[in-house]
Amino acid sequence: MHAITIPEPGGPEALVWAQVPDPVPGEGEVLVEVVASAVNRADVLQRQGFYNPPPGASPYPGLECSGRIAALGPGVSGWAVGDPVCGLLAGGGYAEKVVVPAGQLLPVPEGIDLTRAAALPEVVCTVWSNVFMVAHLRPGETLLVHGGSSGIGTMAIQLAKAVGAKVAVTAGTKEKLERCAELGADILINYREQDFVAEIKQATGGAGADVILDNMGAKYLERNVEALAVSGRLAIIGMQGGAKGELNIGTLLSKRAAVSATSLRARPLGEKAAIVAAVREHVWPLIASGRVRPVVDRELPMPQAAEAHRVLEASGHVGKVLLVVP
Amino acid sequence: MHAITIPEPGGPEALVWAQVPDPVPGEGEVLVEVVASAVNRADVLQRQGFYNPPPGASPYPGLECSGRIAALGPGVSGWAVGDPVCGLLAGGGYAEKVVVPAGQLLPVPEGIDLTRAAALPEVVCTVWSNVFMVAHLRPGETLLVHGGSSGIGTMAIQLAKAVGAKVAVTAGTKEKLERCAELGADILINYREQDFVAEIKQATGGAGADVILDNMGAKYLERNVEALAVSGRLAIIGMQGGAKGELNIGTLLSKRAAVSATSLRARPLGEKAAIVAAVREHVWPLIASGRVRPVVDRELPMPQAAEAHRVLEASGHVGKVLLVVP
Repeated sequence: MHAITIPEPGGPEALVWAQVPDPVPGEGEVLVEVVASAVNRADVLQRQGFYNPPPGASPYPGLECSGRIAALGPGVSGWAVGDPVCGLLAGGGYAEKVVVPAGQLLPVPEGIDLTRAAALPEVVCTVWSNVFMVAHLRPGETLLVHGGSSGIGTMAIQLAKAVGAKVAVTAGTKEKLERCAELGADILINYREQDFVAEIKQATGGAGADVILDNMGAKYLERNVEALAVSGRLAIIGMQGGAKGELNIGTLLSKRAAVSATSLRARPLGEKAAIVAAVREHVWPLIASGRVRPVVDRELPMPQAAEAHRVLEASGHVGKVLLVVP
Repeated sequence: MHAITIPEPGGPEALVWAQVPDPVPGEGEVLVEVVASAVNRADVLQRQGFYNPPPGASPYPGLECSGRIAALGPGVSGWAVGDPVCGLLAGGGYAEKVVVPAGQLLPVPEGIDLTRAAALPEVVCTVWSNVFMVAHLRPGETLLVHGGSSGIGTMAIQLAKAVGAKVAVTAGTKEKLERCAELGADILINYREQDFVAEIKQATGGAGADVILDNMGAKYLERNVEALAVSGRLAIIGMQGGAKGELNIGTLLSKRAAVSATSLRARPLGEKAAIVAAVREHVWPLIASGRVRPVVDRELPMPQAAEAHRVLEASGHVGKVLLVVP
């Protein structure tokens, strides 16, 4: 098969479409013939040599895919060769074939075409596991999403609205904020021109955000804690603004608040399967009903993965950038 | 009645036993004739002028008491005049009488004398709400308790052991560590001589602590995060080591860990009542059976509150220091 390989870490040009051996499904695994994958920030870090795949994972980038089941490994039940699926991966999505643990497979939701289904697994699992399973966002509460127009952001807005929460977003341009508003965001904050702490407090009668979904890490830590409401929960899923920040424990304690940080990729199989099962139960019906939909910025042929990474790094996109197997 | 007043914030001598007006129970409140109160770190901060009572609370110190119900305010059911009780207070325990919201009252557990029951409410509610309701310590997990010989520490050891967890403690002397071992602590760390991160890792096969109950705040923040296991939860309940510390979000994220900080005193009535109800359901039977017991360092007459504060500030005690109404 072909896959995007990384002979030497570096810029986007480090991504090379090359012939590689086919993967073989082991116990409890499924071989998927890939139709599409999607680009995540973690792929950029992996390309740069800063985020190695966990032990046992594929060396190729790609944390999600859609496609058709080509073969079942031993001990797999509930799936059949030919089933259209999408899946959460520890790597290897940028390829013509990939092996997926059966617990990380999802059926393609009704009404979603197979290519666009590649936009779903990583963002849906990340948002559901953090905003709902860790931070327990409840109806009537306010969620603040940083980077509201990103793949994660566009899904977080829709899921939070679907459960009856109020949603605030930050983004860097008027156009991106308008796209967030179309998806349901109630409070729009241009982080280049406005102070998100002051804006969220004003918009919530001084209360602040009950949950914050953050991809900035250290750079926003102090302000995120300021922006939290009493009993607020800050869920960190990225460190685009650095890894070490000052935590004001006094503020946290006076608010009885909490800070969590997670990633999906390194979780053990059992935890991933539990997240995928929760997503299938709670999110899949919302997608099938048309209430929540994948937001796709563009589709590029997979051999042009370098161009897709340039798009992500320029941050001009809204939603997901897909890579389609030629 | 008499109460310990604080005419001017300052050292222990700022605590003055004086005649003051009797409190009057309002809607949903109960008047308790106090038999004993107990000393908490927060009382020292209040005496120093650093921790004012929340709005509406008694101006006198004292976050817990035991005694007999002297009168019921309007709308109180389930309690009768003369009932022996103990209660969680937002203040006012250092007095001959105190008003308690009915939801914060507990019956005196079987087998515990009325005076010693004053040692229970604050530590039991703090440990249960943090270690179990926030951090969800589970059987088989490891809890690290800083200050294992404190009132909080001695209760945390017993409750964690009662649910089947493994318990590690830090303390500053061999004698204190021996007392912790008598209460069931499995892993004893002398923080003056040993590095608690290295010790907890060694004692858990490299895994670290699943839950840490911390009273030090900033001073221990970085090392606490280091000491956490994967999926670990750091519950901060005090800031004896300062309020602002560096948080390594990268470490937190790689462990999928969380940091929470809470205090009991400022919580709204509904939250306190929920904690007290949970304590009555889950902890009271453990006390009635003799499995968990209050640990009392000494009893002093309430007018000698200054001496009790000196004991607490010298940190030579193990368990609670009680103040008994003369």
